[in-house]
Amino acid sequence: MPPTDAVPLSDFDAATAVSRGEGGGLTAVLDPGWDVGSGVLNGGYLLSVAARAAVLESPHPHPVALSASYLRVTGPGRTTLTVTPGPAGRTLAHAQVTLGDPAGPTLAVQATTATLGEDAPVFSSPMPEVPPVERCLPADAGADLAGHPVPVVGLRERVETRLDPATAGWAAGQPLGEPVMRAWVRLTGGREPDPLALVLFADVLPPTSWAIGQYGWAPTVQLQVLIRALPAPGWCLVEARASEVAGGWLDEDYRIWDCTGRLVAQSRQLARAPR
Amino acid sequence: MPPTDAVPLSDFDAATAVSRGEGGGLTAVLDPGWDVGSGVLNGGYLLSVAARAAVLESPHPHPVALSASYLRVTGPGRTTLTVTPGPAGRTLAHAQVTLGDPAGPTLAVQATTATLGEDAPVFSSPMPEVPPVERCLPADAGADLAGHPVPVVGLRERVETRLDPATAGWAAGQPLGEPVMRAWVRLTGGREPDPLALVLFADVLPPTSWAIGQYGWAPTVQLQVLIRALPAPGWCLVEARASEVAGGWLDEDYRIWDCTGRLVAQSRQLARAPR
Repeated sequence: MPPTDAVPLSDFDAATAVSRGEGGGLTAVLDPGWDVGSGVLNGGYLLSVAARAAVLESPHPHPVALSASYLRVTGPGRTTLTVTPGPAGRTLAHAQVTLGDPAGPTLAVQATTATLGEDAPVFSSPMPEVPPVERCLPADAGADLAGHPVPVVGLRERVETRLDPATAGWAAGQPLGEPVMRAWVRLTGGREPDPLALVLFADVLPPTSWAIGQYGWAPTVQLQVLIRALPAPGWCLVEARASEVAGGWLDEDYRIWDCTGRLVAQSRQLARAPR
Repeated sequence: MPPTDAVPLSDFDAATAVSRGEGGGLTAVLDPGWDVGSGVLNGGYLLSVAARAAVLESPHPHPVALSASYLRVTGPGRTTLTVTPGPAGRTLAHAQVTLGDPAGPTLAVQATTATLGEDAPVFSSPMPEVPPVERCLPADAGADLAGHPVPVVGLRERVETRLDPATAGWAAGQPLGEPVMRAWVRLTGGREPDPLALVLFADVLPPTSWAIGQYGWAPTVQLQVLIRALPAPGWCLVEARASEVAGGWLDEDYRIWDCTGRLVAQSRQLARAPR
């Protein structure tokens, strides 16, 4: 009889798998399908691979704070992961995680892991008012969004994305005065959210500068992700907002709620603004 | 004749000075006067020392993104600083900065430096409406704040703090329903703000949980600071807000504007919530 645990890995779990070699070193094979165009891998995808390595070497199961410096392009294919443990205790553990290729480190991550529980929050920011999923706009790769086809990039094929119509004007060439976007997201194939998926969702939308009509790629320089709670199964709502676009720089501030309305993650990145 | 550049260093510049030893190593002597009580040094103060070391070893003059993991208590007195340069180019440079004592690293920082210019922003979040400085409440050490003396901690003696009365109810035992605080701040002695002072200001207020009546110390676990523009001389407005207090954790989200109303810095930290 086949073993009962032989459930095939979801796309996300397969693409973020970290394995230990014979010498004890960690490696991952980065999947070219998690790109945002031009073969560039999504920053949240790369960070979720680093988070998996951090958890693998930690006494705690959940990433709660990750700060990543995107040093160089991390391309698809084999990458080595180096985890340098820091102080660890009953509440939390620190570590440094580095992704690298033969030319040196490409992504440096400070990771704090802990054990998230079921505590009801003392205070939690309420979810903004957004139409239900079925009244939002599909932004899957190739979808027709108000007459404009969504670019076929791997990320959009692997994360189902439903844009809040109130912040989707940019897609029809009618940008807002404010750099904000909201969308419901979930992994394709029914894989439910967990802290690793939230790390992915923390960089999952197009640059918020698109919302004010500044299109183009906005490469991440430094990204911090905080995971605040274990998400309930179902869709998550992502709100991304820039506080300032100036001098060739852009910030992206994310808040993520699960379908019960609980704030489950936050992130902020500094990126280069599209020209 | 004495040299004309023999202006005495401000308290802040003296307390964050980084010097190079004969062997090339960097050290700082941390000033016990920049504490938040019980001899614990303020996290923003420690990070501004690390930022100074990053700039010293960079081709660029300004810290623009810093992410710090507070690994162990960094006590007053001599600390060693190790700067490991990463990729550097015309736009930005990456480095890792570590503060340490003989027992090992105490603070690990990923630092990105760049050259901030005078560009007018494409988009910038407006400053919230706050009364002018002279109508806000002095929260200097020992001051009487609505009948409650402000704890005498070094930080409050070195940073002049004027609380927005709308968010100062906690000081009179009347906490708000929302964990938010706003205050005008400046360094004592007339030292004007610059990017290093903004790093200090990014962790300068009491824990936002005080605003909802949860008093006590909230030790920082991981802090990210983004410096977005060169601040104009004068007071800066700091707004600190928690999005979630749950499971023994707290986030603190800062936005900082200069006196012209320009957003000049942002930060977010994950901290342990007061019990």
